Amino acid sequence: MDFASLIGFLSGLALIISAIFLGGSGDVFVNVPGMMIVVGGTIAATLLTVRYKDVTTAFRAAWIVFTVDDSDPQEMIDNMLELSKISHRNGLLALANVESNSNFLKRACTMISDAASEKMVEKTLQTEIDSLYARHFKIQDVFKKMATYAPAFGMLGTLIGLIQMLSALDDPSSIGPAMAVALLTTFYGSLLSTMIFLPIAGKLKARTLMEITNLEIIREGSLSILSNDHYANVYERLSSYIPEAQRKPLIIGSQASAENIS
Amino acid sequence: MDFASLIGFLSGLALIISAIFLGGSGDVFVNVPGMMIVVGGTIAATLLTVRYKDVTTAFRAAWIVFTVDDSDPQEMIDNMLELSKISHRNGLLALANVESNSNFLKRACTMISDAASEKMVEKTLQTEIDSLYARHFKIQDVFKKMATYAPAFGMLGTLIGLIQMLSALDDPSSIGPAMAVALLTTFYGSLLSTMIFLPIAGKLKARTLMEITNLEIIREGSLSILSNDHYANVYERLSSYIPEAQRKPLIIGSQASAENIS
Amino acid sequence: MDFASLIGFLSGLALIISAIFLGGSGDVFVNVPGMMIVVGGTIAATLLTVRYKDVTTAFRAAWIVFTVDDSDPQEMIDNMLELSKISHRNGLLALANVESNSNFLKRACTMISDAASEKMVEKTLQTEIDSLYARHFKIQDVFKKMATYAPAFGMLGTLIGLIQMLSALDDPSSIGPAMAVALLTTFYGSLLSTMIFLPIAGKLKARTLMEITNLEIIREGSLSILSNDHYANVYERLSSYIPEAQRKPLIIGSQASAENIS
Amino acid sequence: MDFASLIGFLSGLALIISAIFLGGSGDVFVNVPGMMIVVGGTIAATLLTVRYKDVTTAFRAAWIVFTVDDSDPQEMIDNMLELSKISHRNGLLALANVESNSNFLKRACTMISDAASEKMVEKTLQTEIDSLYARHFKIQDVFKKMATYAPAFGMLGTLIGLIQMLSALDDPSSIGPAMAVALLTTFYGSLLSTMIFLPIAGKLKARTLMEITNLEIIREGSLSILSNDHYANVYERLSSYIPEAQRKPLIIGSQASAENIS
Amino acid sequence: MDFASLIGFLSGLALIISAIFLGGSGDVFVNVPGMMIVVGGTIAATLLTVRYKDVTTAFRAAWIVFTVDDSDPQEMIDNMLELSKISHRNGLLALANVESNSNFLKRACTMISDAASEKMVEKTLQTEIDSLYARHFKIQDVFKKMATYAPAFGMLGTLIGLIQMLSALDDPSSIGPAMAVALLTTFYGSLLSTMIFLPIAGKLKARTLMEITNLEIIREGSLSILSNDHYANVYERLSSYIPEAQRKPLIIGSQASAENIS
Repeated sequence: MDFASLIGFLSGLALIISAIFLGGSGDVFVNVPGMMIVVGGTIAATLLTVRYKDVTTAFRAAWIVFTVDDSDPQEMIDNMLELSKISHRNGLLALANVESNSNFLKRACTMISDAASEKMVEKTLQTEIDSLYARHFKIQDVFKKMATYAPAFGMLGTLIGLIQMLSALDDPSSIGPAMAVALLTTFYGSLLSTMIFLPIAGKLKARTLMEITNLEIIREGSLSILSNDHYANVYERLSSYIPEAQRKPLIIGSQASAENIS
Repeated sequence: MDFASLIGFLSGLALIISAIFLGGSGDVFVNVPGMMIVVGGTIAATLLTVRYKDVTTAFRAAWIVFTVDDSDPQEMIDNMLELSKISHRNGLLALANVESNSNFLKRACTMISDAASEKMVEKTLQTEIDSLYARHFKIQDVFKKMATYAPAFGMLGTLIGLIQMLSALDDPSSIGPAMAVALLTTFYGSLLSTMIFLPIAGKLKARTLMEITNLEIIREGSLSILSNDHYANVYERLSSYIPEAQRKPLIIGSQASAENIS
Repeated sequence: MDFASLIGFLSGLALIISAIFLGGSGDVFVNVPGMMIVVGGTIAATLLTVRYKDVTTAFRAAWIVFTVDDSDPQEMIDNMLELSKISHRNGLLALANVESNSNFLKRACTMISDAASEKMVEKTLQTEIDSLYARHFKIQDVFKKMATYAPAFGMLGTLIGLIQMLSALDDPSSIGPAMAVALLTTFYGSLLSTMIFLPIAGKLKARTLMEITNLEIIREGSLSILSNDHYANVYERLSSYIPEAQRKPLIIGSQASAENIS
Repeated sequence: MDFASLIGFLSGLALIISAIFLGGSGDVFVNVPGMMIVVGGTIAATLLTVRYKDVTTAFRAAWIVFTVDDSDPQEMIDNMLELSKISHRNGLLALANVESNSNFLKRACTMISDAASEKMVEKTLQTEIDSLYARHFKIQDVFKKMATYAPAFGMLGTLIGLIQMLSALDDPSSIGPAMAVALLTTFYGSLLSTMIFLPIAGKLKARTLMEITNLEIIREGSLSILSNDHYANVYERLSSYIPEAQRKPLIIGSQASAENIS
Repeated sequence: MDFASLIGFLSGLALIISAIFLGGSGDVFVNVPGMMIVVGGTIAATLLTVRYKDVTTAFRAAWIVFTVDDSDPQEMIDNMLELSKISHRNGLLALANVESNSNFLKRACTMISDAASEKMVEKTLQTEIDSLYARHFKIQDVFKKMATYAPAFGMLGTLIGLIQMLSALDDPSSIGPAMAVALLTTFYGSLLSTMIFLPIAGKLKARTLMEITNLEIIREGSLSILSNDHYANVYERLSSYIPEAQRKPLIIGSQASAENIS
């Protein structure tokens, strides 16, 4: 559970709600038809824009906002160094037995142990990275589109309310409450966009970029292992992916005992 | 028929209409001159911006929003694997007889069986993909332009209404209804843009990207077949285009009985 | 004459004008100082932004909106196929005598008949395409800048009118007409931007892209002729530039009688 | 002196001023605190955003708007053709003595006469072009940032004025003048952005692009001379940079008498 | 301490504060719940969007706005020339002992002295530059996101205030002060975005670009040293990174006495 995200979400909600109750009763801010226009309209336009399957995938992916990101480039570099040691000691064929949580890493190992050419390894792994990026982009795009549609339907709702109010302008004293109701949909639309859709789209993008850094480390490491680079060279090539301050010095004499890499 | 799109469209429409009738009579929202300014103006500016032929093509393409997308990358990979088997068993010349719904695939097969060079196959297929992307982009662009023009003409209509109302400000009680009429064009413009033009443009783009993924699978598969890659290598190269979870394991011993590929 | 553009322009104008007269007298919409601020200001800012020469070139190019685009990629492909036949039958030197309306094509022929290297031909033709694109972009940019400046000066005019009205707020009954006048410049600015500048910029861009497709067909065809590709290969390479539905089947046995290519 | 720019600036100013005086006294439009918020705030935010040195450089560069652009690609092509003749007649070493106003051209000549490799010449000249583009971009960016900050501070000033007016709403008759004053900062901010900052940024960019075209002609010409291309080939390669209509025919027999190239 | 930034910040603040006090009491502009919505909401949405670690890193990096940028490309070029001399006199191995503040430079020297291949050096240093750019971009992005969220929450606060005021519109005389309070959050949001977040994001980007220029000089210099280029050629290649006016002439005979390079 990512507590920073949870605290962010709850405190943002609390701020808005307390601002509403500080100014009087919260009843004024509940308007079911208005909510239906904004939420329903946003979903309707999104269904028209993207495939149904992508919408459901996107909503499942949204949960990622509250999960801790446990990907660690440093750990991935250590893994690749272990693999480099293994390949130097036991030959490239030994990589066939490597166990890992990452299917991408397992796939790279299988290709290396199958004696695939460098060009083949590079192209296949790069296609997989590009393809993953394209799929994740499609999911982020669902939320970016919703962040655009929500305020647009909010404005449509406000326009409907304003036109109804203005066309029946008998009693000047009724203007205020009617305009308040009309503005509610704009409020709903902006709130959904700012507090929900934009942050989710941003977080999904950040996660994708981190995942791709990890995959690039695997790709570079695999190519380095395949071309039989020295252990220190593999370290040199891969450590460029993390900031100087976080780099661990290379300990040449360490034991590559565990072949089971997390 | 893509029911998700249809339900999206109908529910969006229903929401807007019910919101209108909940607030009173719907007559207020019908204003023929206002509709003419927004719809007519949008069409007029679009005709000035793009060629007449592109406008008609775009309107025919818009129907795609309600069709089910039946392109399936996994199926296309299976097809390429079949072709790989055929070429290994019967030689590259056997590909000349392949029947397929996809002209792109037929063309790739013809070029392979004609012993075209790898560079020639890659360049020709890539040019075709780029050219298809450029043509589809032009069609999407028609709807993106309409999504820009509709609110602009909505605002122009509102400005005309406001100026007329303000310049003849004799009776304060007439302000309300006149402003309601003026705001109607803004409402029409935003509605057209948010509910029609933007979703169509988005859906067309999504379909184009899916089609191009399929064409890229054909391109990569053709190059792999041409360079006489092993069956398993073809699978390895192509399976990168689909997510891990959806990949079917490769069954080496399967029979390549049917030469008629859908 | 491109009738679609003409009808678009006239009908758009007619819609706006009829909307104005439907609501009362058209006198309210004529305000010479307001027009001067918007039109004059837009021209002034454009002169400051781009060179005088580019402004005059842009205004001459604007006429293109009403001309029919008669460039036809299919025809250009036929031309290149004819040249391919001529070069096969009479040698590359025969291309020196080719007559064409297109200076780009004539130049390509001259270079081929002068036995220029493939790299030289490719680089020179590509530089010419890039250079043409850059020059056309500069012209489109003039109209895009005017489409930005016109509403900006419209808003400046409205601000001037509002400030004058508000600072001399003696008689409440004069607010209406004064605000109507103030809003007029916003109306002028939006109208110019939406009905004139944006469509011209869009049309110029569409024409440039079509012209460049034609030049790319010439470039690819020239390179194909230079490397002595077979007639069918030239057709294969070039037909990728047009959609499948429009491709003419290749008739191998046709006579290359005319050396004068339109 | 570039008279078109000067006329543009003066006429734009005259239009705004006459619009102000046509509507009454100009005193209403002078508000020193408002000017200080917009001008001072814009400068303050710009100093925070970019380095002090870049701000002063940008203001010196702004003068360029009123200077005539005398760079002429055709002349530069003629210069390169002269150099090509000299190198053919007297050898590459003769280029060491070439005098020119352009340090870039002198540098290219020095490198050619020093027998630098083609790769070295290309890379060095390209780095210099990229580096010049990056530096000029930084200067344009100062004005683009100011064009963003000026309206933002204009709006801040208007908000301050509105809040002060609304919080002390005793006398309804004072609303008008107070709102006029509040709107003034928005007017200042928009005016500065539209009439000063955006045009300067646009002009600087246009000049940079023209200068880079000239440098690219020098780069291509130098590479052509270095690879000992024929005089006509140099002409062919370089003339692609200018439009067909402006190309001068090549006169082969002309004398290369002057080694001092402007 | 960068005094220009400090003066910019203080003068901007002073202008806003004096504008507030010139118009009356400053009490009107203090509204704690409003501040909490804008500041709290911005932080909450940012925590949802980016990782907690990136937020804290970003706030630490923000201090950079007030530090003097002491990176000097000319000095870096001098350093690389010294290294070139050292390598010519004492061999590439001598570079292993070079001391420098820049870990990037030390790393380049270590790789050169370890006899790494040119491809390896180029790829490793380039990966490090790309990786640094990506990390810095992530930090700038935090402030760009805050510059978007702050005005959005300002508008949400204003909407809440407006809806509360309009729904309880009993006493017309209370409209003014209530609207003033409602507008305050818009004011806070715009002020934060314009005076704090946008300038910080801009300054961070400018610094990153300068740092990358320095790293590119090291990369190019290292490659030049590695390929044993002549001292004058190293100077030629590297001096392209700085403007002509600032280039120091090369003094060939100078002594490379100090091996300790700052």
